Formats: sequence, C-alpha cells, structure tokens
Amino acid sequence: MGILDKIMKPRSIAVVGASTKEHTIGSDIMKRLLEFKFTGDIYPINPKGGIIEGLQAYTSVLSVPGDIDLAIIAVNAKFLLDTIDQCNQKGIKGLCVITAGFKETGKEGAELEKALVAKIHQYGMRCVGPNCLGVVNTLPEISMDGCFAESIPERGHIGFVSQSGALGGGILNILKDLNLGFAQFISIGNQADVNAETALEYWEDDEDVHQILLYMESIQNPANFRQLASRISKKKPILALKAGRSAAGASAASSHTGSLAGADKAANALLGQSGVIREYSLKNLFATAKVFANCPIPRGDRVAIITNSGGPGIMATDAVCEYGMQMAQLSEETKEKLRSFLPAAASVKNPVDMIASAPIEHYKQTLETVIADDNVDMIMVIYLPFLGLKDIDVAKAVMEIKAQHPHKPVIGVFMTKSVFFTSLSDMDVNMPFFMYAEEAADGLNRLNQQRLWIERPEGVVKKFDVDHKKAKEIIAKSVNEGRDQLTTRESIDVLDAYGIRVCKSGFAKSEQEAVMIADSIGYPVVMKMTSKTTSHKTDVGGVRVNIQSPEKLRAEYRDLIAKLTEKGLLEGLEGVIIQEMVKGSREMVCGIATDPQYGPMLMFGLGGVFIEVMKDVTFRIAPITDIDAKEMIKSVKAYKLLEGARGTTPAQMEQIEETLLRLSQLVADFSFIDELDINPLLISEKTGEGIAVDGRIKVRMQEAKETLG
Amino acid sequence: MGILDKIMKPRSIAVVGASTKEHTIGSDIMKRLLEFKFTGDIYPINPKGGIIEGLQAYTSVLSVPGDIDLAIIAVNAKFLLDTIDQCNQKGIKGLCVITAGFKETGKEGAELEKALVAKIHQYGMRCVGPNCLGVVNTLPEISMDGCFAESIPERGHIGFVSQSGALGGGILNILKDLNLGFAQFISIGNQADVNAETALEYWEDDEDVHQILLYMESIQNPANFRQLASRISKKKPILALKAGRSAAGASAASSHTGSLAGADKAANALLGQSGVIREYSLKNLFATAKVFANCPIPRGDRVAIITNSGGPGIMATDAVCEYGMQMAQLSEETKEKLRSFLPAAASVKNPVDMIASAPIEHYKQTLETVIADDNVDMIMVIYLPFLGLKDIDVAKAVMEIKAQHPHKPVIGVFMTKSVFFTSLSDMDVNMPFFMYAEEAADGLNRLNQQRLWIERPEGVVKKFDVDHKKAKEIIAKSVNEGRDQLTTRESIDVLDAYGIRVCKSGFAKSEQEAVMIADSIGYPVVMKMTSKTTSHKTDVGGVRVNIQSPEKLRAEYRDLIAKLTEKGLLEGLEGVIIQEMVKGSREMVCGIATDPQYGPMLMFGLGGVFIEVMKDVTFRIAPITDIDAKEMIKSVKAYKLLEGARGTTPAQMEQIEETLLRLSQLVADFSFIDELDINPLLISEKTGEGIAVDGRIKVRMQEAKETLG
Repeated sequence: MGILDKIMKPRSIAVVGASTKEHTIGSDIMKRLLEFKFTGDIYPINPKGGIIEGLQAYTSVLSVPGDIDLAIIAVNAKFLLDTIDQCNQKGIKGLCVITAGFKETGKEGAELEKALVAKIHQYGMRCVGPNCLGVVNTLPEISMDGCFAESIPERGHIGFVSQSGALGGGILNILKDLNLGFAQFISIGNQADVNAETALEYWEDDEDVHQILLYMESIQNPANFRQLASRISKKKPILALKAGRSAAGASAASSHTGSLAGADKAANALLGQSGVIREYSLKNLFATAKVFANCPIPRGDRVAIITNSGGPGIMATDAVCEYGMQMAQLSEETKEKLRSFLPAAASVKNPVDMIASAPIEHYKQTLETVIADDNVDMIMVIYLPFLGLKDIDVAKAVMEIKAQHPHKPVIGVFMTKSVFFTSLSDMDVNMPFFMYAEEAADGLNRLNQQRLWIERPEGVVKKFDVDHKKAKEIIAKSVNEGRDQLTTRESIDVLDAYGIRVCKSGFAKSEQEAVMIADSIGYPVVMKMTSKTTSHKTDVGGVRVNIQSPEKLRAEYRDLIAKLTEKGLLEGLEGVIIQEMVKGSREMVCGIATDPQYGPMLMFGLGGVFIEVMKDVTFRIAPITDIDAKEMIKSVKAYKLLEGARGTTPAQMEQIEETLLRLSQLVADFSFIDELDINPLLISEKTGEGIAVDGRIKVRMQEAKETLG
Repeated sequence: MGILDKIMKPRSIAVVGASTKEHTIGSDIMKRLLEFKFTGDIYPINPKGGIIEGLQAYTSVLSVPGDIDLAIIAVNAKFLLDTIDQCNQKGIKGLCVITAGFKETGKEGAELEKALVAKIHQYGMRCVGPNCLGVVNTLPEISMDGCFAESIPERGHIGFVSQSGALGGGILNILKDLNLGFAQFISIGNQADVNAETALEYWEDDEDVHQILLYMESIQNPANFRQLASRISKKKPILALKAGRSAAGASAASSHTGSLAGADKAANALLGQSGVIREYSLKNLFATAKVFANCPIPRGDRVAIITNSGGPGIMATDAVCEYGMQMAQLSEETKEKLRSFLPAAASVKNPVDMIASAPIEHYKQTLETVIADDNVDMIMVIYLPFLGLKDIDVAKAVMEIKAQHPHKPVIGVFMTKSVFFTSLSDMDVNMPFFMYAEEAADGLNRLNQQRLWIERPEGVVKKFDVDHKKAKEIIAKSVNEGRDQLTTRESIDVLDAYGIRVCKSGFAKSEQEAVMIADSIGYPVVMKMTSKTTSHKTDVGGVRVNIQSPEKLRAEYRDLIAKLTEKGLLEGLEGVIIQEMVKGSREMVCGIATDPQYGPMLMFGLGGVFIEVMKDVTFRIAPITDIDAKEMIKSVKAYKLLEGARGTTPAQMEQIEETLLRLSQLVADFSFIDELDINPLLISEKTGEGIAVDGRIKVRMQEAKETLG
C-alpha cells in the first residue's frame, strides 16, 4: 500500500467543519466531493448535526458509524488539536488540514503547528497541509475532488504538487483551459508533514501518474529530494517551477566563492543533478507538460521540419539550431520520394518546404515519408492557413499519420486562429500543437533533454585512498588554536593529504637540505628566503626563479648567503622554501562553497582576475559523481582553454576531474568545511596538470569543535 | 503628398487579372475590396470583359473611363511588362504586383524582374511586390483590403511590413485573433521597388500609424535603414522580427574578427543602433505590439506590483529584477493609506499583497493609491481567481482607475481562463492583459527600453584632426607593393597617424640615437636588436627590458655590441628598436570587421587568449557616435576590469572611447579597410590608457587600388 493511500485513495472521507453556509470552505468542499462524484462514503461533520448537501451530518467523527480513511479538516485553528485527538480515537490515519493560522501567521501559529506535527507523529498519521487548498484524485475508481479551487478537475496523467495554495488553484484553472488533465493534485501548504518529496515517492510507481509537476518556493530536505528525484526522473519527467530567484540572490552569502554561488545557483545545481527540468515561467511549465503528455521520448536529436511556408521554416531552423539540436539530413531515398509528388518549386531538403499550394494529401505523404526516414528522430509540422484548406482537417490528417508511428515525437505548429486550439480541446489528440515554431522547438528541446538524462550514466561517488588522519591533524591544530581559517601552508597540506596535485615545496635550513628537496621536487625550482627581519624579499634578492640544476641551486644559495652577510641581514634568516616552478598561463579556480539551505557545493571555472568579472563558474551540490565532475568541466566556457586553445598544452581532464572528486570526498569527510578555494588551479604548460598553487580553507568553528571532539 | 499615397490611399483601383473563377487570386482580391467596402472606384480588368462581382469589367486599363491611382496586378508573369506599359499609357503611378515568377524562381525570373524595375523607374511609378500578398489600409476614409490573406483586417494603428507573403498572411490572422488592429499592411514580396525603408519613411508622420512592425529576412540598404529608423524610432516604436539567424551564423566570415562577428551580430548591431526593438519570436513580437498599443511610455523604470496572491508576486518580482528594472519604493504615505483599508495579513510593501480575500473595492483603492505615488512609474496588477469574484469585473474596475491616470502604464496579469481574454476582444480596453507575470514583465521592459531610447542623446560622429596624408601614403605603399596585409609596423604607423595611442617606439642605429629616442619616449624602455643574420634575438641577449635611465641604456647598448662582437655577429646588425615599456595585465581588443552586407563594424571587448573563448565582445555598425562608443565599452562584461577590479588602475574610459571613434573615422576615410585588429589594446597600469601594442590592417585590394588611383 502506498504511503499516501489513505489520503489520496480513500474509501471514506469525513469533512470536519462541513457547513450549510454558502461560500465557506466547509460548504464548497462538500459540494465538490459530491459534484465530482466521489466513489466512497462522505460524512459531513458539524457540531450542530442536521443535513448538509443532502447527507446526514454527524456531530463528531466519533459518532460516524463506518470507518473513515481521510479527514478533510476546515475547522477554526483553535479546535484543531482536539479534532485530531478525536480522529485518532476514531482510528483515522489520513488528514488534509485546510485550516489556516499556523506558522504562516507568526510565532504563536508556529507553536500550534509544532503541536500538530507532534500529534501526527504520535498517532502515526499522515497529514497534508495545514493552510492548503486540498487534494484531488481523478482516477475514476476514486474520483475525489477534495479541494476548493475554482475549476472542476480535468482527467489526465499529471501529478501536481503546489506549495502555494492560491497559485495552485490558478494553475488548476489554466491546466483545465489548456486541456491538460491531471491524475492527482496535492496542495502541500505549510508542508508540516507531506511535502514534495513525499509526493515524488508516492508517485514513483503509480502508473496513473505519467509526469510530475512541482511548484516550489523552497526545498525542505535537499539531499532527500536529490536522491528521490534523480531516481524517479529516469522513470517519468519531473518539471519544476521554483520561485524566489531574485530575493534569493539578494540574500546570497557574503564570502568569496559564496557570493558567486547564491541560493538560486544551489537550487539550480540541485535540480539539474536530480534530472528535474527547471522551468522559469508558468507558461513554459505548461507548454512542456503538454509536450510530455503527448510525445514519446525521442531516440536522438535530429529534427526534421515540414512546412508550407518558407519564413516559419527559417524561424524554426533558427530555434532548433540555437538549442544545439541537429537538423536531420534526409536520406537520398526520402528526398527522391518527396520529389516524386511535390511540385518542382518545393524544397525536399530539410526544412521540407511543400510551398503554399500544398493540399492535405501532401501533408500526409510528406509526413509519412519523412517519419519513416531513419535519420529523423523528431518532426515539426508547420501549417500556415491559405485559402481553401481547413486547419482542423490538416491537423486530423497529420494525426492520422502520427498514429501509425507512435515512437517518434511530432509537434504541430499551426499559425492559425485560436479557435483551432479551442476545438482541439474537444478532440482526442495524439500530438501537441502550438501557435509558434519557437514553442515547438522549446518542446523538442525538452524531449531531447529528457532523453539525454535517461541515457546519462548514473555515475559513482568515488572513494579515493587518502591520508585522512593527516588532514584531520592539520585541521584540528588550527581549530584548537582558535583559527577558523587555515594558513595557506596548512590548506595546501590538507589538499596534499587528500591526493590533490599541489605545487610541491619544502622548507630547507641549509644548502644541502635545499638540494635534497629540489631533487625530490624536480627542476626547475624557485627558491624563496624566509626571514624574521627582512620582509621585502625581492629587495635583497630573496626570490630566485627558474633554477635549473643542483649546481645552479647551490650557487644561488651561496650567493644569497653572501648578499645577506654583506648587508648584515643573515641573522634573521630562518631558511628557504624550495618550490616547484609551475609554468602556465591558464588559471582555473575550484573549491567548495556552502549554501545555508542546500549544504556544500563544488565549484569549478575560470580563475584569476576573471573570476568575478566573467563569472564563468559552475556549481554542483556535493557529493558529486564522476559524471558530475566531467559535466562541470565541460560546462564552462573556459573548457576551450583547457582543450588547448591557441597552441597551449591540452589539460589533463581526468586529473582535473579527480581533483574535483577528491574535494568532494574531503567535504564529505569534514562536513564542517565552510569554504575552500583553490585559486589558481594553474594548468601546467609542461604536463597539462591542474596544480593547486594557492589554497584557502575555512571551517565552521562550533561544528568543527563538536565533530573533532 | 506621401510617397506611397497612390498605392496606400488610392481613390480608384484597377484589378488587372480580375476573375470570376472561384479561389483564384483575381477573384479573391475583387471580393475582398468589395467586402471591406473600398471607398473609391473599383475597375475589374479582364480581356473577356463581362461582369465580375457585380461590376462592369474592362478589357484593358486603357478602356477604363476614369482615372486610376493603383493597379493591383495578378496576371501571368509573361503578360506583366505589357500590362505595365498599358498602365503607363493610362497614367497610373501606383502598382501592386501580386504575380509571382520573378527572381524567387531563378535566373530567368531575375531578368524579368530587372526589366520590371527598369520600366518602373522609366515611368516614374512606385511598385509593391512582385510576388506579394497585397496591401491594406483600414483608415475608414480609404477602407482598402487589397490582399488575399485569410482574414478580413481589424482596424487599429499598427503599420506592418512583411517580407514573407505567406507569413504575413499568417500574422494578419493572428493579429486579428489577438484583437490587435492595424492601420496599414504592405507585403513587400521581392521588394523590387518598395521595401521596409520606403514604408518607414512613408509612415514617419502618418498619424494613423502609432507603431511599426517589420518581418524581415534581409535589410536592403543598411545605411539608409539606420538613418531612417534611428530618426523614426524616436517618434514611434519600431519592432522587428529578423529571421535567418542560424543560417547567417553558418555562413559567417572566416577571418579572425570576422568570425566573431557574423551577419546576425551585424544585424543586431544595426537594429540596436537604430532604436529598433528586436524580437526573436512572433509570440514576443505580438506581445510587445499589444503593450505599445495600450500603454504610454513610462517616465522611469520603477515598477509596483499589486497582487492577491503571494506566489505570482514573487515570480513577477523575479522577472522585473532580472530585467534590471527597479522595484518601486512606495512612499510612507502610500503605505499608510494602504494599511488603512487592507486587512492586517496584507503586505503594503511592494509587491503589495492584498491577499486572496481582496474584493473588487480593494483592487480599485489599491491601484488608485499606488498609481498616485510619485515613486511609481509602471504598475503590474495581478489577479488570481478565487470563489466569488469575477475576473471580468475585476478587469473593468482596474481599467476604470487606469482611465483616470493615462500617463502611467498599467499591465494586468490575469491567471484565469482563456475565455476571459476572448471576452476582452469584444471590449474597448485601455491596458494590456496577459495570462502570466513574465509576459507582463517582458512588456514593461520593452516600454522601459523605448523610454531609454527616446531619452538617449543622439550623439555625434566626431571628426578628429588626423594625419590623413601620412596614413594614405603608408597604405598606398603596401597596396602598390601588392600587399593586402600591412606589416605590423605599417599598421601601427597608420593608427598613430590617426591619433590612436600606440606603443611608442623608434629605430636607432647608434648609441646616441637610441638615447635620443628613449628620451623622447620616456623611461623605462625596451631595447630590441634587429639583425639580418640573427633571428633568435634572445639567445644573444638581443632583447633588454625595463631599462630605467639613459645611463642604463648606454650600458646595455654597449654590452650588446660587445656580446655581438664577441660572437662575431656584429656585421648583421641593422640597429635597435627602442620601445616604450607598457606594464599592464588587462588585454582588451578593438578593431574593424566588415560584413559583406552591412559594411564595416567596430568591435570592442576582452582580448588576449580569452577573445575566442569568452566572446566578450560587442559590435556596432560604422560610423559610430560618441554615445555608441560609450555604450560599447559599458556593454562588455570586462567593463568591470576597466573600472579597476582587484586593485588595478581604473582605465581612462574617454581615451578608449576616443580610440574607437578614431577607428571609426579611419574606416570612414579608407572604406576599403576590410579588417583591423588592435590586439592587445593593453591597459597601462601606470596611466590607465589603452595602448595599441600590436596592430594588423588588411585591405580589399581591388577597391583600395581603385580608390587610391
């Protein structure tokens, strides 16, 4: 039995707060349940009893003779806890609390909501709401409209969750208007118990739900959402509209990497990694839903366009190409066949322009020919009205051919009057129709995106053999000394302990030590003096670069000592740092940023002075898989630089991927790492490796102390 | 009299090729003229004479008794030239040639079209077409539907030009459906004579045309288009849909700067500089037209949002902010007033959330209060349906208030059923309504864009005092020597002659000369030897950088001579180049690229290795004004680098602007310059100047020879 069956597939419903007073929720809900012909029993509950909407009302759930699966509650908030106690006494396990006056109203309401949650858990109930619009299930065996939206539900196969009640109602209206039916609707309201994740899980194997639509203002448990959504989105498309982008942007974290991140980037990363198709407007959300409702997932991204007018064909081509999809290369056989019946002035290349005189028969023959071509994965059929041809007849003809080829998506672009679309609403359609070519291209792109997601390997979160102990010691030392920010040296050492390729270096107190270290690093090296008394190293020749051999190193070392002696500065000398000399002009950046809600994120992109100006960086929620890492690297514009633009050495992509994966492991092991920046991750011109030249790690002190003990 | 009055405001029309045969153009045009009740005389012309659509037909225009202003011609192409001769004999000056079979069909047709054009010019006629849909003027005094689109025209104030006949017809259908009326429509077809520019000019002072819509696949005379459009767009909005982006991209020029350009970037630059609002889809074109049809131009960009539901308010805020418009700060007075009648749970901050219970009275009071606030320039009113409130009543109430405030744009977002929008079609509306907040935000953004364009100073094409003669000599030398590519030295010298700040340098043959040059350049300098025998300068110490004083320069010079003497290489020495040493890490790029259709363009952006990867460059068609130059610099992301990101010296913006303006002058003076690259234009860390360190000029040889004589 499904986790929400008592609520979404009840055999009996009590409406607590049912009323005879017009235009109250208690009246409307009763009317809706009856009007939509709920197949189970309905028990109106009202302290006064009597007859409500022709049914015997009971003074309490306790006086109802039969069992009750679901209580839809619309009583005043102050009666709620008592009502729930009674529901428990009656053995009710499903609640839908429409009543408002909880955490949305302030502190007192929040307390009440806490008490509500406690009772739900105590009694082992599941609860939708409070402060919600209700629930709907259009499955004929259930036929439940337990919701006070303006529209009567339209039957279909969308599962829809809305966080905003009012907007949810508006959306139901529009869905009906667009002839987009749904299977189930849950208005989660304050999501005290049931949230988007519960709905996802519940709908995972529900065959009546073919696609899932989410309207969200926040994600309650990002990690859980990701786990569920990334699994379920492989089975059915999940579309999400997430509002609050700009507000979120304004409250972005203030730290360096953090300020590049921002909560909306985090949400975006999370949805992307979960295979959720993010839409930025209701309009696009509905358009995409319409496409998934009427199209199979294509086998590739090669699009053919059939039109009776050149202009729209050009615009469609523009739109298809801008999405990076392919214009299908029609086979010679296809072209020959098309030539056999189309007029000479027609174009048999893709886009196939049948010209304005095309009769219905040409639409049928052309679609039949093109759809059979193995080089074609998806088709857009464009129709512009010309005198003598009826749009609806053309649509019917096209659908007739489409019906014989269920495995290829076909989208119609009918630039005709809106009455055409209204009349489609009364028909059974087997493909989506839009007014404009760009909408159809959007739709094809979404289909292709879903295909790519399904084909995308799941990837693994790799586990590397690292020196966890050493990293822990370094971090613990800093924490114990009260420093939330590790020194550069410590940061680099932690990275090194986790197997990240850092700029090699060592500290030497003598000529002999210097040579030993340089030998182990490999030449050329840089030598930098460290001194307590001399802060301007370069003025005394304290930095010597490009030292090519042990002999040269010895000479430089001796020369340095001589110079210091000469200037009377030898006393302050602590020693010299011998550092690998990395030559490279490509500075990348990678690191970790933490979003207060979504947790740690991996970052990768173009570093150096360009980081804030170009913002050519990408984020993924940790932990990342090998596939995530690959995609991160490919998704930034600077990828071309890594590939070896302008004669540079191609970067070792796998090594850079591994760097990201090791960082992911680091923050998984030390979850209190708040920020980590490797800037630059210099791409070595010699080997193509990404080398951490500078590093910075910051921890959340309190958390770190607790974890490290 | 207007240039197209004979065609667009005729007092009499001859339909040449009028027919009694159903579903022919000759029959349809006749029917349309009559059905739409053309106010002048109609003369059907058919060699057989008789009665057509109840009117006496004439065998030729010559047998018509009265004068004829316009001949709409739908005869077979082979009869066209004779028909035109007859039209001339009859004194007809206006033609609309619907007949197809001209340059769109190939070479033979192109010849016929040439002959047509020759006759038109010879006879002093104006001609729309050939291969077009016809012309329409809905002005009641004219009432001409001389077009065979499917729809009867809807009266309104859009002037619409379509290059695609079929698409034009489709658009007319949709406009009618959207209740967007138009004043005049011209299907320009092959634009043998009348084109978009003619229409712009004709409509400039036509009070019946309030906004101009263009569907274009190409722009015939870019310079003329720019001149007209940039003037007319200040008087009335011009919206353009330009198709063929991707195809254009594919055929982009192959050269360096050229490949970044591409024809679509050129078109984009041209439209932008002309104040034309470019739309990328028909959908957006219509939405914008609807906004301009029903809104005044706002006085600022501060938007207030009024809603009865939080969710859509958030989404609207997101959209407004993403366009860079301001969320209006409501005055305390406004907030207080709102508080006085809105419930406690309402929010009186922008967005003003009246909450779901808001009655019509609240919509009226709230809008009245907010619209009177001086801090508000534009308003979005959102309505979600709740039980008990009728959408159309809310719309009427809102329009009532709006009517009292004609100077502020108000856009309605009514997330309700489409029947609402249908019923609006039958009403007189004084503001646009959309289904979604994003559409309204798009509209507000367009209004704001038009405001900014109107407020934008016109700017001047500056004329600098330059050494034109010297530049000419350098270029002529290269051309005479058969080189279309100038040497780096020559290129830099040309730039220098045009007053562009180049990296200063000079050639010296002796120590004394070197010092003199260095003195005039200023220290530090770089010294580079030039030798016929030594190609690897660095191996012999031939490049010496950061020379700080005359003494050091003398020492370095002598050292060089000594080293060369020692190695027996002195003989090949030609001398040394003394070069200004420019320190700076910010590499910009600027230059000239030539689009085969749009001519020379100025380019500016981020240079160095990032040029192809980041593509952070912008283009403008030459010549550019000082305002264009300013906008170019501000429009690239790297502008932040110029401002002095990360502690760098702020760049001298005016000097960089001047560099662009001087380049513009250069290509105006030498129009055969095909490509010019300054890469890098190094931003000096010392002074903030943009300094041309490397330059490259390429000319179109044939043209250059002809021009230089």
